[in-house]
Amino acid sequence: MMEIEQLWKEIDARVACLPVRTVSLANSLHRVTGAAVMSPCEVPSFDQSSMDGYAFAGTPPGICRIQGSLSAGTPLSQSVTSGTALRILTGGMIPEGTVAVARQEDCSVEGDLVTLRPGLSISPGENIRRRGGIVRTGDLLIPAGTKMTAGGIALLASVGREHLPVIGNASVLHLVTGDEILGPGVPLPPGKTYDSNGPMIRALLCDLGGEVAQDRLADDPDVLLRKVLASSADVLLISGGSGPGDRDHTRGVLESAGFSIHVSRLNSRPGKPLIFATKGSRIAFGLPGNPLSQWVCFHAFVKRALCRLQGLPVPGMRSVQQISAVKESTDPRRTWTPGILECRDGQEMVRPLPWKHSGDLTPIIRAEVLILDADKSGRANVMIL
Amino acid sequence: MMEIEQLWKEIDARVACLPVRTVSLANSLHRVTGAAVMSPCEVPSFDQSSMDGYAFAGTPPGICRIQGSLSAGTPLSQSVTSGTALRILTGGMIPEGTVAVARQEDCSVEGDLVTLRPGLSISPGENIRRRGGIVRTGDLLIPAGTKMTAGGIALLASVGREHLPVIGNASVLHLVTGDEILGPGVPLPPGKTYDSNGPMIRALLCDLGGEVAQDRLADDPDVLLRKVLASSADVLLISGGSGPGDRDHTRGVLESAGFSIHVSRLNSRPGKPLIFATKGSRIAFGLPGNPLSQWVCFHAFVKRALCRLQGLPVPGMRSVQQISAVKESTDPRRTWTPGILECRDGQEMVRPLPWKHSGDLTPIIRAEVLILDADKSGRANVMIL
Repeated sequence: MMEIEQLWKEIDARVACLPVRTVSLANSLHRVTGAAVMSPCEVPSFDQSSMDGYAFAGTPPGICRIQGSLSAGTPLSQSVTSGTALRILTGGMIPEGTVAVARQEDCSVEGDLVTLRPGLSISPGENIRRRGGIVRTGDLLIPAGTKMTAGGIALLASVGREHLPVIGNASVLHLVTGDEILGPGVPLPPGKTYDSNGPMIRALLCDLGGEVAQDRLADDPDVLLRKVLASSADVLLISGGSGPGDRDHTRGVLESAGFSIHVSRLNSRPGKPLIFATKGSRIAFGLPGNPLSQWVCFHAFVKRALCRLQGLPVPGMRSVQQISAVKESTDPRRTWTPGILECRDGQEMVRPLPWKHSGDLTPIIRAEVLILDADKSGRANVMIL
Repeated sequence: MMEIEQLWKEIDARVACLPVRTVSLANSLHRVTGAAVMSPCEVPSFDQSSMDGYAFAGTPPGICRIQGSLSAGTPLSQSVTSGTALRILTGGMIPEGTVAVARQEDCSVEGDLVTLRPGLSISPGENIRRRGGIVRTGDLLIPAGTKMTAGGIALLASVGREHLPVIGNASVLHLVTGDEILGPGVPLPPGKTYDSNGPMIRALLCDLGGEVAQDRLADDPDVLLRKVLASSADVLLISGGSGPGDRDHTRGVLESAGFSIHVSRLNSRPGKPLIFATKGSRIAFGLPGNPLSQWVCFHAFVKRALCRLQGLPVPGMRSVQQISAVKESTDPRRTWTPGILECRDGQEMVRPLPWKHSGDLTPIIRAEVLILDADKSGRANVMIL
């Protein structure tokens, strides 16, 4: 029986980043940059006013005649000379001859004459943003390995980038196995169960950015093998049949398909019958069919592999004060308990949400963390979901 | 000049939930339930085995002849009687006459004979999940106002739900104004600037689930007014032109279109020239065109309105220990500073990421919080982004 930490090491050792692809800037949100991005240009690309005000040819300017107005986006055709000024708006190009821009609230205007208010002064260069003053051509904008945010998108848009190299999203084939599993839309015949793993895994992958195809199969190893052999997905998830029983086909099918099995029995509750296998750069997980077990195994193990593939940081554990105790179990396996985070006087704390029994899905609706080895209250190791 | 907290109150008072719509279960992820969901059926829908093992007609069973096998999903045609047993797999229907199921690891099997291992016993009902034992028909599964997660989707899929009433997503029209603003794909003529607000707002709305349409307009109040009048979007965002300057048209256009202006000058840095207006149930924000200001105003104010519309909890402030001081400013306005969270000995702390100047977009790439009124180190009020 493998330990949880050993499985994490196996995943880290066997799962590498997917190749880099180029996507549109809009589609780069939440993806990880596959190369450093340097600026192709200077920002700003021209000397510009940072305020609404007046461009003067000297400091102090004296009384100047207003010769015209420059708003942002207007091509530059005027210049200022001693004794003249130009009205200029934020973002407007600094006209030739300008020494400084005075803010409009610092100026007195009478008719077409403008001067600084009494007692005020301006320094050379004041309220002028210089060409290249924010970013120079070739400056590093975003390092490789950065998870793209709305802010990163804004920065790259500001230098005119339209596309971006990012680490690929994992393609996932999810096969739900079990003669008893039915899709929605039909009344439930005796002995059958509606599929909840399919919709759950689809939602979990949506949060991670994976691209998922799904299928429901009967408990037939030949059918399963054909599906596995026909797939070229980066990740294969097989729900149900991961145990050692007579009707559990996942391990045998993966072996027939040429996968190497790295774990098939884990010291984890839930998650004892978990399979992790690889074939070259392809990854497969056999997941217990119970939806609770599936949900825990996804967060604790599958997500780590998907993060490795997509260049994202793997989910880490951190130590948090536990608010209430959970019932001790006679099961010797190491146990995951869902929990929620609370903040008390700036101190982060975790409240366990024990499930009543193995069919009780209610805690996972609102769980924010998984606690490993929760028991009495005290400090607990949690994984943020 | 309005205070930040007063604007929050205005938003809360004037922005109500959007109407409830029915969506497919898959599309309900991250949406808020518009009505309580009760179970239409019992879970499990039949008595079933929770283990791989043997169904016996008595406790103790004695030595029994194995009469056949029941896997999950197999219709039930057999029963057990005293002296017989049926092999049963997890999820299999409990056959008539069964008193208990013994786990296979607790049984001795020789040929077609099975009995409990010496010294072991089973109780009536053991390893049997009873019909309705998890959920009864009519039980509350998910209350109204719940944000749907993968776990919530799994729970509803398990009772065969295909659709769900959820609070609608906000439709947003985002108009980027400014003669100087250009889209990507062309070399930048002198005096022009690439649009970064469009891609940024699109990404921010993607995270919140809003449905956005966008347009770029010159600084022409007639064009802007036509666009505003032609739109029926729940939310109108106008980037640029929110100030009081000669070329700032947002306020005038919104008034001409019949909107009531609730704020146009805010005690906030950035964000002084922010407009919040409503017309019936429609909402408009005029946002400062500087991308940094826009990013802060979106998080601090626009997001609150979108959360109110979509039934999500509004972003709250919380008090966190601040790690380092920020440079004091001579500007008397209340100031937002981006920051990142760090965890030290289980204590959550915030590190400010001051921007060097108003064009410095780098902190927003990795900011996790906005600190309000950060100054010396000590406790700080932060908004989690």
